[in-house]
Amino acid sequence: MKHISKLVVRSYECDSYSHVNNAVYLNYLEYARMEFLKDNGFDYKKFVAQGYAIIVARIAIDYKLSAVLDDELTIETAPVRRRTASGMFHQRILRGGALVAEADVTWAVLNAQGKPTPIPREFDTPALRPEGE
Amino acid sequence: MKHISKLVVRSYECDSYSHVNNAVYLNYLEYARMEFLKDNGFDYKKFVAQGYAIIVARIAIDYKLSAVLDDELTIETAPVRRRTASGMFHQRILRGGALVAEADVTWAVLNAQGKPTPIPREFDTPALRPEGE
Amino acid sequence: MKHISKLVVRSYECDSYSHVNNAVYLNYLEYARMEFLKDNGFDYKKFVAQGYAIIVARIAIDYKLSAVLDDELTIETAPVRRRTASGMFHQRILRGGALVAEADVTWAVLNAQGKPTPIPREFDTPALRPEGE
Amino acid sequence: MKHISKLVVRSYECDSYSHVNNAVYLNYLEYARMEFLKDNGFDYKKFVAQGYAIIVARIAIDYKLSAVLDDELTIETAPVRRRTASGMFHQRILRGGALVAEADVTWAVLNAQGKPTPIPREFDTPALRPEGE
Repeated sequence: MKHISKLVVRSYECDSYSHVNNAVYLNYLEYARMEFLKDNGFDYKKFVAQGYAIIVARIAIDYKLSAVLDDELTIETAPVRRRTASGMFHQRILRGGALVAEADVTWAVLNAQGKPTPIPREFDTPALRPEGE
Repeated sequence: MKHISKLVVRSYECDSYSHVNNAVYLNYLEYARMEFLKDNGFDYKKFVAQGYAIIVARIAIDYKLSAVLDDELTIETAPVRRRTASGMFHQRILRGGALVAEADVTWAVLNAQGKPTPIPREFDTPALRPEGE
Repeated sequence: MKHISKLVVRSYECDSYSHVNNAVYLNYLEYARMEFLKDNGFDYKKFVAQGYAIIVARIAIDYKLSAVLDDELTIETAPVRRRTASGMFHQRILRGGALVAEADVTWAVLNAQGKPTPIPREFDTPALRPEGE
Repeated sequence: MKHISKLVVRSYECDSYSHVNNAVYLNYLEYARMEFLKDNGFDYKKFVAQGYAIIVARIAIDYKLSAVLDDELTIETAPVRRRTASGMFHQRILRGGALVAEADVTWAVLNAQGKPTPIPREFDTPALRPEGE
């Protein structure tokens, strides 16, 4: 199941080429993952209040097309791997039918001591598992 | 006494006019205020660990000249007012002798409950008072 | 006539106090001004393609309340002054009925040589004038 | 030959975990690549003025340790691949001897029409080739 987020490119996100700067795409992807969690009932504020953190361990992103001011972008987010204390999303940024960028994002959960830890049962959700797993 | 910070404009700080975006100047000013505190012996990490926060209550900034990639900027920071739980800095951003921007920044201290509070004596420093006060 | 924009606070806009960083409000205000122009038929891309720029000459912003992740913010933008080559907006950022921040933003138009110039007639719009002017 | 850049983490680069946000590392890497070009005599402003662009085609970044306010970071930048119209840098972000993050960054050159093009001879530099090539 692909989760869908939408956003529109803002002026201050564009650099001197008038294109969305490559680092801003990581903001977009983070936004979409947070929307994914929210829409799947994950209580992020409670999770953080209990001392847990979701961190990004690795991102591999391919930039395919430039995005510019006012572009309406769709971000697809889908889980593609799940381990006990980590997982991977595949995320695609699209403008209409055209692929602007795509990324594999590996995440992990840390406890209050900053150590890798399984997602507490209270927060776990089937949405974090690839279909069929 | 004017405190001096220096920085060089980075590529990702420039917008589609190839100028430093107006919001980025507030980043620069925050950076310079943090350097001011550090250079005056203010233990910011300890301050935050004790639950205090320094927040910005008001900024009035005049943009005079554009700054561009690789510009070497100097930021002057000087206290111009001091109350029990708040104060004001005047900050000037210069490129060589030319004024790029200047701002009055009003700050306040909040306690762990988010309420205005005097700076704890342990953290107070004469550097936060205008000369002669 | 107040123009209304809406946005939701994103995770990467929050700083180590878990509040929207003060510089980010200027991004929000710029976003709202661009929406104002768009919704009033101002062809910004054509304007820029002809070598013009709208720059910010001054911002005076009062921070009233903190905004945090997922806050739904409304930004009101209204013209409060108009000169030949410049003008001023008053902008208010609200969460529900509560005032989060408000700002006076002075803008000016520059030509391709970077000199102040009246807005070309083709781009001018009554929306940039305060009501009754 | 590894090129070395240095920077210090600024307050506004930290997110609500009080860590440098993952997107900010891409800003740091871009900064270091621009320093690499500058220190190797690449005239970036002239390059852009002639209508060329260097774009990022792919970034694969591994996050190893968190960076926090005032951390003094060193960024190593070294070419590891070179094709006619593209190449790859390996970049490492270090704090003291500890690896904070490392990335492979694939770049390409576009002409004024946005098409991939060899680096014009005037701008090419042996520094963009891995040692021994």
